[in-house]
Amino acid sequence: MRIGWIGTGVMGRSMAGHLLDAGHELFLHTRTRSKAEELLARGAQWANDPAAAADRAEVVFSMVSLPADVEAVHLGRRGTLEAKAPPGVIVDMSTAPPALSRRLAKRAAELGIGAVDAPVSGGDVGARNATLSIMVGGSDDDVATVHPLLERLGKTIVHQGASGSGQHCKIVNQILVAAATISMSEALAYAQKAGLDPQKMLESVGGGAAGSWTIQHLAPRVLRGDFEPGFLVEHLVKDLGIAAEGAAGMELDLPGLALAKRLYEELAAAGHGKRGTQAMALRYLTTVPPPAPAVAEQKDSPPPSISS
Amino acid sequence: MRIGWIGTGVMGRSMAGHLLDAGHELFLHTRTRSKAEELLARGAQWANDPAAAADRAEVVFSMVSLPADVEAVHLGRRGTLEAKAPPGVIVDMSTAPPALSRRLAKRAAELGIGAVDAPVSGGDVGARNATLSIMVGGSDDDVATVHPLLERLGKTIVHQGASGSGQHCKIVNQILVAAATISMSEALAYAQKAGLDPQKMLESVGGGAAGSWTIQHLAPRVLRGDFEPGFLVEHLVKDLGIAAEGAAGMELDLPGLALAKRLYEELAAAGHGKRGTQAMALRYLTTVPPPAPAVAEQKDSPPPSISS
Repeated sequence: MRIGWIGTGVMGRSMAGHLLDAGHELFLHTRTRSKAEELLARGAQWANDPAAAADRAEVVFSMVSLPADVEAVHLGRRGTLEAKAPPGVIVDMSTAPPALSRRLAKRAAELGIGAVDAPVSGGDVGARNATLSIMVGGSDDDVATVHPLLERLGKTIVHQGASGSGQHCKIVNQILVAAATISMSEALAYAQKAGLDPQKMLESVGGGAAGSWTIQHLAPRVLRGDFEPGFLVEHLVKDLGIAAEGAAGMELDLPGLALAKRLYEELAAAGHGKRGTQAMALRYLTTVPPPAPAVAEQKDSPPPSISS
Repeated sequence: MRIGWIGTGVMGRSMAGHLLDAGHELFLHTRTRSKAEELLARGAQWANDPAAAADRAEVVFSMVSLPADVEAVHLGRRGTLEAKAPPGVIVDMSTAPPALSRRLAKRAAELGIGAVDAPVSGGDVGARNATLSIMVGGSDDDVATVHPLLERLGKTIVHQGASGSGQHCKIVNQILVAAATISMSEALAYAQKAGLDPQKMLESVGGGAAGSWTIQHLAPRVLRGDFEPGFLVEHLVKDLGIAAEGAAGMELDLPGLALAKRLYEELAAAGHGKRGTQAMALRYLTTVPPPAPAVAEQKDSPPPSISS
């Protein structure tokens, strides 16, 4: 199939690569062309803007960072909807407000183009191993068209409902993820102060009712002093903003979400925006060395000692 | 072995039964004798008070509700430490403040008796199936003495350190459990308001970075309208009180714990103390019918409809 792909960040790059590996013809655009070089070397073709990528494609994917980027890529000047030969379906896999996904779908429908929102969970590892959970919103027909392609990118693919439903489900996901990372951090901090061996503590709590993906995968990273991003703090801040706005719009009082949003905003404001979400532990732990200002600079710094 | 057992509530009853099944001689005391009848019929022998149970035993276990009960059972008049023939080791499996466990161990040591704190996680199901996670504090010798008995009661048995360490680890466990149940409730509430199908939502989030024991085991109970206790709200309120006191004593600011404590206290104050911790969802969901005041009375009430 002829596929347009916009956005080759950490995740987008791996995902586009899977489609290339599956034998599809890829028309690629991204803001910083150097980030596309590897895929171009593997056979993808360069497109000068989103409209040019869409012009030659049956399906166009986008995987970009911010809602403003989603808007520019599809609805902006030389966006996908300005393609001379419109694609059949556009699939936005970024995390964006449900209202934006619905607006995009409406405008696309006016041009006879289908639109699917398909945000993901699973981070860089999930993108690399094609084990993402993909939360899909859109019409049955449009979803059926792109489903075989989504199967190349993820392992859990669930059609949540009409346009915007994928984004709503992603918000639910982020509410859970943020709370889990905060409680993990509080657990590690309590254990540290109480003089517990953190490994033994994790062994006890991980196998029971307190067990979670976060305890299994992120807590060990903290204990290794690894704050590299699987998922960026600043992206979670953006997502929690979307979540809080969505909750407020539905007159829903979610105090846990409100707390998570405040704590992650404070973490980003303290200079940790480019770290992984597990960096929340830095707020709580006392014996971690002061982290370097940027992720790249701390690669060789010694791991923090938080064992007793 | 000759074993004393104090406390035959929902969990204690199952646990004592496993020791009886393993062929041990059981001397049993509990506040309400009727709750011991089944075990007495299976061969356990009645003791009129904790001292009498301890008198004839090599190891004495306690599994009671409140710190005041732990204190009365061991340190009170006719408590285990007043046994004429002192037992070798006492094992308190209740959840209690670490300071109380240390005080008990100190007083026991003065009498030449060992003491182990061994609180558990895993609820009624874990007690019944002997799959509990048991968090153990005490000296190496005392823990070695009782380890073969603990193996009859649980599957994950980790020696956390000196007296009180088991209780500290249990606090960590409860910090995680409370946060997970609150975020699960907020997730279900958001999904409900957004018109998502809760089953599909759980399928999407459960398989990824938002996955947890709580999402897997408690969320489906909420969707069935099942608020029966695996673990009582009022016991979690007690545990979060111990946790908050412990954190404050260590000058640790845990805003997530503080929020969880407030929300669970409000839930208990609203009359839900005898329900399971998943009843937190009742705070958030709008289309659940007003719950009956007591658990027993709601057995036949219709399940709440929270699907879209």
